[in-house]
Amino acid sequence: MATVERVRVALGERSYDVVVGAGILAGLGEALTALGRGRRALVVSDAGVASRYGAPAADSLARAGFATVRATVPAGERSKSLRQAARLYDAAIAGGLDRGAWVVAVGGGVVGDLAGFVAATLFRGVAFCQVPTTLLAQVDASVGGKVAVNHPLGKNLIGAFHQPRLCWGDVATLATLPRRELRCGLAEVIKHGMMADAAYLDEVEAALPRALAGDPAVLARVVAGSVRIKAAVVAGDEREESGARQCLNLGHTVGQALEAVAGYGRLHHGEAVAVGLVAAGEIALRQGTGWAARDQERLVGLLRAAGLPTRMPAGIGREDLLAAMVRDKKTLAGQLRWVLPLRTGAVAVGQLVPEPVVREVLADVGAAA
Amino acid sequence: MATVERVRVALGERSYDVVVGAGILAGLGEALTALGRGRRALVVSDAGVASRYGAPAADSLARAGFATVRATVPAGERSKSLRQAARLYDAAIAGGLDRGAWVVAVGGGVVGDLAGFVAATLFRGVAFCQVPTTLLAQVDASVGGKVAVNHPLGKNLIGAFHQPRLCWGDVATLATLPRRELRCGLAEVIKHGMMADAAYLDEVEAALPRALAGDPAVLARVVAGSVRIKAAVVAGDEREESGARQCLNLGHTVGQALEAVAGYGRLHHGEAVAVGLVAAGEIALRQGTGWAARDQERLVGLLRAAGLPTRMPAGIGREDLLAAMVRDKKTLAGQLRWVLPLRTGAVAVGQLVPEPVVREVLADVGAAA
Repeated sequence: MATVERVRVALGERSYDVVVGAGILAGLGEALTALGRGRRALVVSDAGVASRYGAPAADSLARAGFATVRATVPAGERSKSLRQAARLYDAAIAGGLDRGAWVVAVGGGVVGDLAGFVAATLFRGVAFCQVPTTLLAQVDASVGGKVAVNHPLGKNLIGAFHQPRLCWGDVATLATLPRRELRCGLAEVIKHGMMADAAYLDEVEAALPRALAGDPAVLARVVAGSVRIKAAVVAGDEREESGARQCLNLGHTVGQALEAVAGYGRLHHGEAVAVGLVAAGEIALRQGTGWAARDQERLVGLLRAAGLPTRMPAGIGREDLLAAMVRDKKTLAGQLRWVLPLRTGAVAVGQLVPEPVVREVLADVGAAA
Repeated sequence: MATVERVRVALGERSYDVVVGAGILAGLGEALTALGRGRRALVVSDAGVASRYGAPAADSLARAGFATVRATVPAGERSKSLRQAARLYDAAIAGGLDRGAWVVAVGGGVVGDLAGFVAATLFRGVAFCQVPTTLLAQVDASVGGKVAVNHPLGKNLIGAFHQPRLCWGDVATLATLPRRELRCGLAEVIKHGMMADAAYLDEVEAALPRALAGDPAVLARVVAGSVRIKAAVVAGDEREESGARQCLNLGHTVGQALEAVAGYGRLHHGEAVAVGLVAAGEIALRQGTGWAARDQERLVGLLRAAGLPTRMPAGIGREDLLAAMVRDKKTLAGQLRWVLPLRTGAVAVGQLVPEPVVREVLADVGAAA
C-alpha cells in the first residue's frame, strides 16, 4: 500500500482530515469509529459505483459495528434534486438514523453534493463523511463544505455550507474511472497549481504521464497536493464571505458559461474549465497583469498533455457565452468580476475587464461570432 | 406608541436584535435598510395573516426601496413541508432574488420555521428576518435559529440552525390573535419564568389580567422579558450541543407526547405544554428535587389564570403517552431524560426518573390506565 497522506482542513471546531491513499477503502469503518460519534450510517452512492465501492464501504462500516442503511441514486447530475433528497430523508428516517448518525457519500461530486445536503438538513445537521471516487471529487468537491441540489432554474441554488468530519479519498478507486473523467480532474489540479503554487505545478507537470497511466502513488501525491492548496484557501474563507475563496473560480467564469451554453452533459465540467483557464490567461495577457506569453504557452501545453481541450468546441456563440456569464452568480451589480493570473501560482480576484477584451478573447479561443 | 424594547441575542458574528413594541410593523423597511444588505426580499406569510400583516410588511419594505416578492402558504402545520419549501424556492428564484436578498417571515411559528428553512438553504443561506404575529412565535419560535419542515414520520426532522438577522415583534398584531392562541403563548411565558427567572414569573403573575385583556404595553414587557430569558439560554448553546439548551424542554417531554397522542390540531402546543409543566412539577415533587408543594400550587394557579388546561383531556392513554415519549428525540440510548424544576427559576436537565413514578404522575394528571 502506498503512503497515506493526511491533510488537515483547519476550520476551528469544524476542522477535519482529508485522508488520501491507495487501497484505504476497507479501513473506512475503523476511521469513522475513531471519530467517536453514533453507530448508525446512511451510505449513499450512485448506480455507477454502488456495487463496486458503495458496498465495500458499507461492509467496512458493518465490520466496525455500524448499523448501516444503503441508498442508491441514479448516476448523473439530475440526481441533485429535492426529489432525490426526499428519498434519502425517507431512507434515513425509516432506517432509524438518529442525531448522532453519519451520512456517508460514496461517489463523485453529484453524490457528495446531494448526500451532503441531506446531512446538512437531516435533524438540523448530522455528521457527514465524503468518500470521493472520482479525481474531480477528490481534489475539489470533497473539500470546502459546499453542498447543494439543483433548481430547475440553475445549478446549486439550494444548499448549505456543511463541512464533512472526514474525507476518505482512496485513489485505488480511480483505476475504474473513465479516462475522460480522470482528465477532467486534472483540469482542477492544473488550476490549483496555476492559481496558488508554482512548485506544485512543476510537480504535476513532471507527474502527468504517470498520473494518466494511473500510478496510485503518483495520484495520491497529486491529490494530496491539490487538497492542501484548496484546504488553505477554504480555511481563510469558509463561507465565501471575505472574497478569499473567489480565487478558486479561476477559469470558471468562461468555464461555467461554456457548460451552460454547450448544454450540460455534452461538455464535462473539467473540459469547460480547461478552456476557461486558457481564456483567463489570454485576458490576463491583454490586461497586462504580469502573466507572460511563456506562462500561457506552458498552461496550454499542460492542458494538452492532460488530454484536455484548450479551445471551444464548434458552434458555441460568443453572445450566448456573454449572456450566460452575466446570469451567473459571480456578477455583482451587473458587472462581471474576473479571477486573472498574475504569474504561475498567483492570481488577482474581483477584476473588471472591458467587454471588448472579453469578446476578443472568446473569439480567440474559438467562440463563433 | 408604547416603548420599544430591544434585546440582543449574543451569538458572535451571528448576533442579532429582537425588537419588541406596539405598532412597529410599518417601520420594518427602515429597520432592514439599516442592516445594510441587499435590496430584494421574499415576504412569506400564511393565508390567515397575508392581507392583515403580510401586505403592510411588504408595503413598508417597498417604501424603503426594496424590490419585494410575496408568497402565501396555506395556514396550518401542513405547510411545513418540502413541497411548500419548493414553492418558495420557485418564487424567490423566478422573482430575481440574489445572494444578498432577504427572506422575511410574517406570521406564526409555521411560517417562521418554513421561511427560515428556505432562507437557510436558498443560495446556501440568505439573510432572514422574523416578523412574528403570534404570542407563541414572539416569545419562542422567533428566538433560537431553529428552522425546519416536517417529515411524514415526524415533526421538524428536516431543518437547520439559521439565525435571523432581525426579529421584529409587533405586539399590536396580537390584537387580532384568537384568544386561545394568546393563552398558548402564555404557556411558554410561564415556562420561561418557572425555568429561569423567579422575578419575571412574579411580573407575569401580576401582569396576567392585563396581558389577557390585550394591553399592548404590558404585552410588550412580557414578550421582551421572555425573549431575554430565551436569548440568554440560546447564547450559551447555539446548536443544542452542550446540553444547556435542554432546559427549554421543561414541560415538553409530556407535552409533545400529549400532542402526538391527542392528534396534532386537537390540542394546541401551548395547551399540551401547560399539562406537561404540571407533570414535570409533579415528578419533581416525588423525586425530591427541592420543588415544593406551594411552588406546584402556584404553577397550577397561574396556568389556570391564563386559561390553560392543567390536566389531560379525556381519553388519553398512559401507555400511548409513554410510547410516544420513548419515540421522541430526547431519548438517549433508549432512556428518557427529564427537565425537572428545582425551585421557581431553576431546573435540572438530563434527569432519569423511574418509570413507576412517571406512570403515577401521568395518572395523577388525568391519563387513562
